[in-house]
Amino acid sequence: MNSKFNNADARTYSVVPNTSFISIKDESRELMAVWPDIVRDLTDAGRHLDIPDVTKWLMKVLQYNVPCGGKNRALTVVEAYRSLSPPDQITEENLRLTRILGWCTELLQAFLLMVDDIQDHSEMRRNQPCWYLYNDIGLTAINDALMLEMCIYQLLKKHFKTKECYVNLLEQFLSVSLKTEMGQCLDLLSTNFGKKPNLDLFTMDRYNSIVKYKTGYYTFVLPATAAMSFAGITDPEMYRQAKTILLEMGHLFQVKDDYLDCYGSIEDIGKTGTDIAEGKCSWLIVVALQRATPEQKKIFEECYGQSDVEKVNRVKQLYQELGISNTYAIYEEETYNLLHTHIQQISRGLPHDLFLKLLNRTCRKIGRKD
Amino acid sequence: MNSKFNNADARTYSVVPNTSFISIKDESRELMAVWPDIVRDLTDAGRHLDIPDVTKWLMKVLQYNVPCGGKNRALTVVEAYRSLSPPDQITEENLRLTRILGWCTELLQAFLLMVDDIQDHSEMRRNQPCWYLYNDIGLTAINDALMLEMCIYQLLKKHFKTKECYVNLLEQFLSVSLKTEMGQCLDLLSTNFGKKPNLDLFTMDRYNSIVKYKTGYYTFVLPATAAMSFAGITDPEMYRQAKTILLEMGHLFQVKDDYLDCYGSIEDIGKTGTDIAEGKCSWLIVVALQRATPEQKKIFEECYGQSDVEKVNRVKQLYQELGISNTYAIYEEETYNLLHTHIQQISRGLPHDLFLKLLNRTCRKIGRKD
Repeated sequence: MNSKFNNADARTYSVVPNTSFISIKDESRELMAVWPDIVRDLTDAGRHLDIPDVTKWLMKVLQYNVPCGGKNRALTVVEAYRSLSPPDQITEENLRLTRILGWCTELLQAFLLMVDDIQDHSEMRRNQPCWYLYNDIGLTAINDALMLEMCIYQLLKKHFKTKECYVNLLEQFLSVSLKTEMGQCLDLLSTNFGKKPNLDLFTMDRYNSIVKYKTGYYTFVLPATAAMSFAGITDPEMYRQAKTILLEMGHLFQVKDDYLDCYGSIEDIGKTGTDIAEGKCSWLIVVALQRATPEQKKIFEECYGQSDVEKVNRVKQLYQELGISNTYAIYEEETYNLLHTHIQQISRGLPHDLFLKLLNRTCRKIGRKD
Repeated sequence: MNSKFNNADARTYSVVPNTSFISIKDESRELMAVWPDIVRDLTDAGRHLDIPDVTKWLMKVLQYNVPCGGKNRALTVVEAYRSLSPPDQITEENLRLTRILGWCTELLQAFLLMVDDIQDHSEMRRNQPCWYLYNDIGLTAINDALMLEMCIYQLLKKHFKTKECYVNLLEQFLSVSLKTEMGQCLDLLSTNFGKKPNLDLFTMDRYNSIVKYKTGYYTFVLPATAAMSFAGITDPEMYRQAKTILLEMGHLFQVKDDYLDCYGSIEDIGKTGTDIAEGKCSWLIVVALQRATPEQKKIFEECYGQSDVEKVNRVKQLYQELGISNTYAIYEEETYNLLHTHIQQISRGLPHDLFLKLLNRTCRKIGRKD
């Protein structure tokens, strides 16, 4: 089961030197080197001897849905740990545990995406058919998603039970899961359960709340604070400051996601956008409604939230007339700069470098992400 | 928010007398008296001030899906705690916590049923439309189910964080959830994802595995062992013995459930059976296949797992020809007696009375359950 990426030589150091110079590509490779062990931990034949079919199936579910994304969240866990942990604690063993923690955030992401794709009638994800569409799996894909969710806690138990941070980690994953589902709920309430959305609800305040809960907590706050817990940080003020800046990043990240849902190519984002057809409370429609004339608003009322291609195109045309793409570019630039300033203002021993690195990796360039 | 059932007078005792004489009806009432507090804990306006719509929605989801069942699992938690805890620990406060623990098992049950109903295309549950069919909620009901699942851990954190059993409780709920989903997976694999089931897979061995994982753990093992943890029991041998007998009970319970899916009236079971149409690996079809002639087997191949009413009726007719109903009655009687004997053989200080009470409440009479 050893991956070809598994660098046995590196393990001869007990403390790893020059940790800040690891590239994203290298770290991504290190994460992949741990992946076969994760699969083995979760499907160990000894554990559920009497249901080998399930073990085999779970292996397929894991392989199809977890390792093929951008691994943004796992990378954040590792970067945060490297940056926050006392240097003498950055051992190969602790880095290995950090990567396992990273995979836990990727399992959460996989679970959430699988369910979202079913609820949003999506077709593609990460350049392949959504799991529920693969081999006509259909709604039984829900149960597969639930198994991945519970795998998180099996991994945490196996690898962190004896650590001081164990209960904190359990609580962080559980409470962020609930927050994400609450954000998803607000998102779904806004679409009026896939029926005609009520555009009067699409205010920037509502958008901000959706994004904070639906994206910010699990994409930024959880990976960073899980790493903080494992690094032994206990000061509540450090968590508070980190959370504030991480939620800001989550906001910019989601605005970019909304932009790409409409303007990204399938190569860029590995999927086809569904926000307009599904009537989502997206940043684009919120901004568009802010500046639409009564006539334009009427067209949005008629066309937004319907799968008819002509109506979707009519919405896109209105976005163009309203200059939304340009507004996005300005917003991205300004928010990026503002975040830069806020990072400089962080006190309490949190390293600015870490947050700048996160910002640059996740929010800077329009590119493929998940 | 005080319920009319809330018996304030009883709280003047710090240790509650005559605990073994509480009737199911009275305990059910006591559980309902705690329910408003559970809802308040989970929807407390102070916690998610910025998303009041979600709080309101969660209240609806809780109310529709959780308190209206038979509360079998919550009753098991309370009965087990009353029976296993040292008498001086059975205070009003501990009983209140036990009931909260009971509601946690009911939240797990509600979550699982909501998802199962979507996957099985069920229409009715507990004498009302399934949640996903209510007001055209549709697939967004998945997210509602997920919120209920996470509510479990919010309650455990709020009420048990300072208790010694806290981590055990978290782990029990999490690991039983995974086991249940694995059982569900085996069940769904057997139905071939809602396509034509492969009846060659429908062996009694496979049936036994499905039932153990899908039903036994969360319906019997979890409620009893959660109560054991809260009662301070740590001896692994006691858990092992309890688990063995509880999984046996779970088996009989599920066989009865399968029987009622076909033969129970909607008044009996609060829903319409879907096992034949959905092609489920049910006890009835497994026994029927064991004694079917090649000709009869051919008819099962043609008719089992199809929603066409005539085909469903043809299957039922074959069950009658094969005397399945009578086989069930004999099986129920024999298994009940066998369980009785096994309970008498329990050693290690586990009270026989508790298990006999559980057996009689959950497995004895054919009646409404969920």
